[in-house]
Amino acid sequence: MFFERIKSEGLAHNSYIIGSRGEAVVIDPRRDCQVYVHTARRNGLKIKRIFETHRNEDYVAGSVELNVAVGAEVYHGPGLKWQYGTTLQDGQEFGIGDLRLTAIHTPGHTDESMTYALVDSASGAATVMVFAGDALFVDEVGRTDLQGPEQAKRLASALYQSIHQRILPLGDGAILCPGHGGGSVCGSHISDRDESSLGIERAQNPVLQLTKKEFLRHKTLERLETPPYFTQMEKYNLEGPPLLGHRPAPPGLTPRQFRDEMARGAVVIDTRRPAEFCGAHISGSYAIWLDGLPAFAGWVLGYEKAVLLVLEDESLLDTAVRRLFRLGYDRTAGYLGGGIEGWYNSGFLIEDLAPLSVHDLKAKLDRKEQLTVLDVRGGDEWNRGHIDCSLNVYVGHLEQSLSRAPRDKPVAVLCSVGNRAGLGASILLRAGYPKVYNVLGSMTAWRAAGFPVSTETT
Amino acid sequence: MFFERIKSEGLAHNSYIIGSRGEAVVIDPRRDCQVYVHTARRNGLKIKRIFETHRNEDYVAGSVELNVAVGAEVYHGPGLKWQYGTTLQDGQEFGIGDLRLTAIHTPGHTDESMTYALVDSASGAATVMVFAGDALFVDEVGRTDLQGPEQAKRLASALYQSIHQRILPLGDGAILCPGHGGGSVCGSHISDRDESSLGIERAQNPVLQLTKKEFLRHKTLERLETPPYFTQMEKYNLEGPPLLGHRPAPPGLTPRQFRDEMARGAVVIDTRRPAEFCGAHISGSYAIWLDGLPAFAGWVLGYEKAVLLVLEDESLLDTAVRRLFRLGYDRTAGYLGGGIEGWYNSGFLIEDLAPLSVHDLKAKLDRKEQLTVLDVRGGDEWNRGHIDCSLNVYVGHLEQSLSRAPRDKPVAVLCSVGNRAGLGASILLRAGYPKVYNVLGSMTAWRAAGFPVSTETT
Amino acid sequence: MFFERIKSEGLAHNSYIIGSRGEAVVIDPRRDCQVYVHTARRNGLKIKRIFETHRNEDYVAGSVELNVAVGAEVYHGPGLKWQYGTTLQDGQEFGIGDLRLTAIHTPGHTDESMTYALVDSASGAATVMVFAGDALFVDEVGRTDLQGPEQAKRLASALYQSIHQRILPLGDGAILCPGHGGGSVCGSHISDRDESSLGIERAQNPVLQLTKKEFLRHKTLERLETPPYFTQMEKYNLEGPPLLGHRPAPPGLTPRQFRDEMARGAVVIDTRRPAEFCGAHISGSYAIWLDGLPAFAGWVLGYEKAVLLVLEDESLLDTAVRRLFRLGYDRTAGYLGGGIEGWYNSGFLIEDLAPLSVHDLKAKLDRKEQLTVLDVRGGDEWNRGHIDCSLNVYVGHLEQSLSRAPRDKPVAVLCSVGNRAGLGASILLRAGYPKVYNVLGSMTAWRAAGFPVSTETT
Amino acid sequence: MFFERIKSEGLAHNSYIIGSRGEAVVIDPRRDCQVYVHTARRNGLKIKRIFETHRNEDYVAGSVELNVAVGAEVYHGPGLKWQYGTTLQDGQEFGIGDLRLTAIHTPGHTDESMTYALVDSASGAATVMVFAGDALFVDEVGRTDLQGPEQAKRLASALYQSIHQRILPLGDGAILCPGHGGGSVCGSHISDRDESSLGIERAQNPVLQLTKKEFLRHKTLERLETPPYFTQMEKYNLEGPPLLGHRPAPPGLTPRQFRDEMARGAVVIDTRRPAEFCGAHISGSYAIWLDGLPAFAGWVLGYEKAVLLVLEDESLLDTAVRRLFRLGYDRTAGYLGGGIEGWYNSGFLIEDLAPLSVHDLKAKLDRKEQLTVLDVRGGDEWNRGHIDCSLNVYVGHLEQSLSRAPRDKPVAVLCSVGNRAGLGASILLRAGYPKVYNVLGSMTAWRAAGFPVSTETT
Repeated sequence: MFFERIKSEGLAHNSYIIGSRGEAVVIDPRRDCQVYVHTARRNGLKIKRIFETHRNEDYVAGSVELNVAVGAEVYHGPGLKWQYGTTLQDGQEFGIGDLRLTAIHTPGHTDESMTYALVDSASGAATVMVFAGDALFVDEVGRTDLQGPEQAKRLASALYQSIHQRILPLGDGAILCPGHGGGSVCGSHISDRDESSLGIERAQNPVLQLTKKEFLRHKTLERLETPPYFTQMEKYNLEGPPLLGHRPAPPGLTPRQFRDEMARGAVVIDTRRPAEFCGAHISGSYAIWLDGLPAFAGWVLGYEKAVLLVLEDESLLDTAVRRLFRLGYDRTAGYLGGGIEGWYNSGFLIEDLAPLSVHDLKAKLDRKEQLTVLDVRGGDEWNRGHIDCSLNVYVGHLEQSLSRAPRDKPVAVLCSVGNRAGLGASILLRAGYPKVYNVLGSMTAWRAAGFPVSTETT
Repeated sequence: MFFERIKSEGLAHNSYIIGSRGEAVVIDPRRDCQVYVHTARRNGLKIKRIFETHRNEDYVAGSVELNVAVGAEVYHGPGLKWQYGTTLQDGQEFGIGDLRLTAIHTPGHTDESMTYALVDSASGAATVMVFAGDALFVDEVGRTDLQGPEQAKRLASALYQSIHQRILPLGDGAILCPGHGGGSVCGSHISDRDESSLGIERAQNPVLQLTKKEFLRHKTLERLETPPYFTQMEKYNLEGPPLLGHRPAPPGLTPRQFRDEMARGAVVIDTRRPAEFCGAHISGSYAIWLDGLPAFAGWVLGYEKAVLLVLEDESLLDTAVRRLFRLGYDRTAGYLGGGIEGWYNSGFLIEDLAPLSVHDLKAKLDRKEQLTVLDVRGGDEWNRGHIDCSLNVYVGHLEQSLSRAPRDKPVAVLCSVGNRAGLGASILLRAGYPKVYNVLGSMTAWRAAGFPVSTETT
Repeated sequence: MFFERIKSEGLAHNSYIIGSRGEAVVIDPRRDCQVYVHTARRNGLKIKRIFETHRNEDYVAGSVELNVAVGAEVYHGPGLKWQYGTTLQDGQEFGIGDLRLTAIHTPGHTDESMTYALVDSASGAATVMVFAGDALFVDEVGRTDLQGPEQAKRLASALYQSIHQRILPLGDGAILCPGHGGGSVCGSHISDRDESSLGIERAQNPVLQLTKKEFLRHKTLERLETPPYFTQMEKYNLEGPPLLGHRPAPPGLTPRQFRDEMARGAVVIDTRRPAEFCGAHISGSYAIWLDGLPAFAGWVLGYEKAVLLVLEDESLLDTAVRRLFRLGYDRTAGYLGGGIEGWYNSGFLIEDLAPLSVHDLKAKLDRKEQLTVLDVRGGDEWNRGHIDCSLNVYVGHLEQSLSRAPRDKPVAVLCSVGNRAGLGASILLRAGYPKVYNVLGSMTAWRAAGFPVSTETT
Repeated sequence: MFFERIKSEGLAHNSYIIGSRGEAVVIDPRRDCQVYVHTARRNGLKIKRIFETHRNEDYVAGSVELNVAVGAEVYHGPGLKWQYGTTLQDGQEFGIGDLRLTAIHTPGHTDESMTYALVDSASGAATVMVFAGDALFVDEVGRTDLQGPEQAKRLASALYQSIHQRILPLGDGAILCPGHGGGSVCGSHISDRDESSLGIERAQNPVLQLTKKEFLRHKTLERLETPPYFTQMEKYNLEGPPLLGHRPAPPGLTPRQFRDEMARGAVVIDTRRPAEFCGAHISGSYAIWLDGLPAFAGWVLGYEKAVLLVLEDESLLDTAVRRLFRLGYDRTAGYLGGGIEGWYNSGFLIEDLAPLSVHDLKAKLDRKEQLTVLDVRGGDEWNRGHIDCSLNVYVGHLEQSLSRAPRDKPVAVLCSVGNRAGLGASILLRAGYPKVYNVLGSMTAWRAAGFPVSTETT
């Protein structure tokens, strides 16, 4: 038996390829699907079928793309008006060489969610692996809030049933293969450990220790962020997203060409790290560090404008472009050839954004300087410890909540280490705030320096 | 938590690297240990400790090598006079960031065998993974015959206790990480599936379904091959093997230099595939296809002579050399630069070895031509189906059993597909048999062609 | 200044990319043109123009492909009805950053042939490099026979003028960048050294030492092979060849699928080396070793049938496919997944082709066995030394000249080392010759073994 | 014939490997010499000899290292007390397959300098290539000032003779292969074009247009920088440098370990780009961007202290370490694991260095703010155009000339683009200057912005 987990960083999205005796299936492929084609070829396998666990909402599904590339049939769960692929029935079975895969309807995260149970007939009848999509994660369960608060309770109830009645009975020994790992926006407390089994989850997943009543209460009170791009993903994944095909890489633009594209309305994303963005950057750009693209581009980017990239290094272009088109941002118009150095060497303007160390921040606060400390972490994080006088606005909501941050005094933006603070600072600069700081190291450095942390909540 | 299984092909040997919060441990490293160093570095981890599950007998342990490279301490089980590392006590615990590893003494395969149980304290107290070495495999258990038939029953009894009293109680959900995968000589029926858990094994591992009495009977009757190089491995792994360090790659030799090295006593291994060996080869060489090196070199090679390699392609040199030094064969004197073409272009002699298709073999048998059909597979394989008139001598024993194969008529050598048959044929040619065939495709092709198969055993 | 020669192996075709201050031009690109795109990007260059030295006849020009990829304009010489690109005028100049490129009309090899002279204005006015296409090679000059014997003299006269009046006067110091290197079919005695200058050629190129009269005589008597695929190349390169775009790699086929494709008329090319082909091969296949594809596929393959590949290793697929589509063979239907082993393991028939060492050949000849010795090298090579009794038919003509080789006795095929002999042998086998040998090592081994060589010509 | 130029970036050092018929020689190898070993192997060549053009002073010669790796003999020019290798006689010849290499004594740059002339006997007697070491470059000739001003005239005279009497007569067509390309400190005006010939140099190398008298005057007046590390190189290259062998890569250190090493006296080099260094850096570090290491590390680093690295990315470690050990800095103690983010996340102090745009600099100057504009380019560059009020101190001399830059007002450091300015700024910060700016884009941006440039010299 061949098995490989293919992880898309940033999204913490897991897809899987499983094979036996020359045949393979892929579960929840991503859009840049050559990785499956190559993995299959290298291992002497032919991809026969593609299974989706549900209509994913956080990335563009790669099923259609992979279907075109290898001609394998796509399968989904029941209840949606899919415009591609084949709808499964609960209990439907498929052979893959020695393996047998059973499709199990497990609504909850969404109504059409499926779980796939795998048996290795060469060894016996035990369920060896369970592909649970967004129903069950390591230390967490799926969200039930995406169809709105009015549906949350109904879905939570369905999820409870699905997990306890349909998934856990597959056996403690079954290895759990969830749709996401730690860091995903699809679950707030997913472990950073990828290896688990139903038995381990039954024993120690905190949400599985709850009674049904507690579970429903927990899920209906749960507050998770929903980036606006999810809407586009749901549409794409229902209708079948546009094909990527063979897309020429976005060109390197001269500073002049880059500036002209900006003038035509393109949006600049600066993918460098926060200290580099402080060092020098182009006025008007969003600062989204490379590893933050999957999680944060979807908060600030719309689908109508072209995107321009500033990169630390040209070799990162492919990574940046992939991370964008996995979210459906297919219109990357180019990148700044020669990097930020090329820009300022051309005599073009660069904008100031002063870095601030936590020591300097502390000194400013001690001196009672006029200063807004803006903490752009999530509410949960803020509640677990923050600087006493800080104002909390989640970075994803900042652009819509600028009225909360006064413009008439300097703003020191912080988060956990300074990455999201960089994005926050760039949003303020775009909005014309006259004096903005990025607190490098942010709360991590603040704590490490031994400065006081408040847990008082508002 | 970081986890990666590092597999050494051919040996089907599994080693593991596990990490958390910047720290890592390695379990059962192989001798070419840069893979651990690089994996650790790439993931921001520092290797702190090295654990051995037992004194391995089928490969040179890499603990000393890795210890020198990264300065991590080596740990072993109790009861042997180890000349390096630290001896563990049953129940000893180690922290690795958020992880906790407990050493459990599980004698049986050998007296000092250890199992390591891993808990992820960030999630709870359940055993998440079990590193069982050669005690428990997927669908199989460890050998108990290596210390001789007189010890087999005692060890089998210990193994039964270790598995049932110490390992299985760690919980059905615990993921099993064994010392070998399918294809290893350390267990005859290991599954080709690498993913399993204690629960799956408890449910369907055939040997775990036996009563203690049945288990003891099964283990004492079991017949497994023990290649002669095991003796050297046991010595090395007790005393600490010689360090590899930075070894210059063996040089490409001209045909003339190669012939001179042969004249000085070096042994030639031709690592090409059987049809290529049939096409042209050097008289006196052993035919051991590249993927067969780990399992078969140890049957025919001693430690006193230098080794010369014939390669399909120079880019395979590194792979061949690694596979040899993993078995302690450190004296590779060079390879035939320019390949077999260079040899015959120099006007040097090439030896005949006719390929024989199963169709031609069938025709010869039907015509009742004088012909020995020599089947060099293992006895078990032969028992499961063979050509009626065939003589069975396991390829590993052939060189010592030549008296069984008459020299006065042609010999058609076969195995399952023709690889081991190639080695068998080369042994006969070295021994001066005048007419030898390699039956390409061997029993696989014979069956595929629909020819009769006998299961009558002797 | 940036300069790189990009060589297509087998064709010994040279293309060039030159750049300065962010701009680049490409001369004579090949069809798989990503190499130029990547080279340009890696060096911060934008490809602005594409220059062709002439309508190439031995490969599919990549100008149109590269034009589509990067939007650069294509330029050709005058006098042909080009269906794409822009026609140059003699003396036209182009700037590339600090560089200046002058187009010089140098008819001879063909009527529209151009030479490009490069000056580095940052240093001075001397011609630094000369891109001479197929007018002038290292130690050789271009062919003048491709438009038929009736045109040869006129073209030779033009070539003499072009070289002596237009190219050599550019200065002894000018570095020569020709369209082909050693091994090309576009010149019979091109040196295997790629580095030269006009001064070196003037001093020691043997053809440049001739008087005009001698030159004309030499060129009109010259006998070079013209593979039939040249016709298709000329058509493609005049009209603009079909675009490759993003072509999915041909799939690995199971032995059964492969056999079915053969039944539907696909032609099998076995790209393995001759000894491997002897070891086992599929009946009906052409043996063209991988490095021989560019030079020999065009002799036996037509454009109407699909091609199937047998590979030594799957990793060679891309190389094989590229070498075919560079000749316009775009219909590779697949390759034999699992290799020849997979074929014979399936119980499918393999065909015999016995290898013959030169020692055995000598013995057969000494014993006066019935045997045709068929030497498939070119006439020139044969004239320089052959086995006394051998019959010479060039491998490219063999399929059309089978009447010259008797079928009623064994045929031992040889060439210089056994590669072309493999193709020759496969042609005989396809034609039903009952007993064929490939003389491994061929004349090289024969000479190395000290056997007698005749230089008597017919 | 095989030929490859192997270039060491930053040093702009050229080494060469040449081969024919299985044999190869290497000219002026660098210390990390695996590149020659691999190139030779990949092309079926055996390195037989190593030739040095002279005792190099700008990098550690790799001859001894390569000698140990492949066993090839090392050859030098006459007149020095070499402690390794064999001394050549003028006119000594060597065969390399079809090639013939003649050693020609060409003193001037140094007394023992050699030029090697290559003939391809397969083609004729013309000199095909000339390996001129540091005698003759493209557009420039070698330095004659390294043995002190009192020797300069004598050496210049010798160089004139060597070039005009011994090198140029080898023929206009001979391709020039010099020891350095553009950007080297071994010649002030070497072209960035690598391709040339003796004929091109004769025609347009400006120094070759001079009469002997003009030449001597030019060479004795010439002012070139001589970094202090040259002394160590000369010693190493005379005596034979220490062997690198297999050196474990420097470890990634935690911020705490890094700080401890600093406390023990290790010197920090921050290899990131200037804007990044402005964004955040460790107090006390030298800012030498990665591509500047070869040219600038030797100005500020001694040989007695260990080196610590700050990297933009861990993948650059190998490049940085190589660039250091090519200059003999073998004591790299580690790099900052986790990068600068790890440092400030640990709550450790970061130092301020404000970036300054040319627009802001202009505004400050227009406002007549108190400010020293410190231009750290070479005197030649400064003479060709500078900001009116600027003070010129070459970056290499800055640490020894701090008295020239007042401490009591802010200093804005600039160079051509901001790289050397970064190093200059870091030197000032180390020396305790209270307020320092790096002018990003420096003179390039200043000119691009259209601001006034003065060419008045002092």
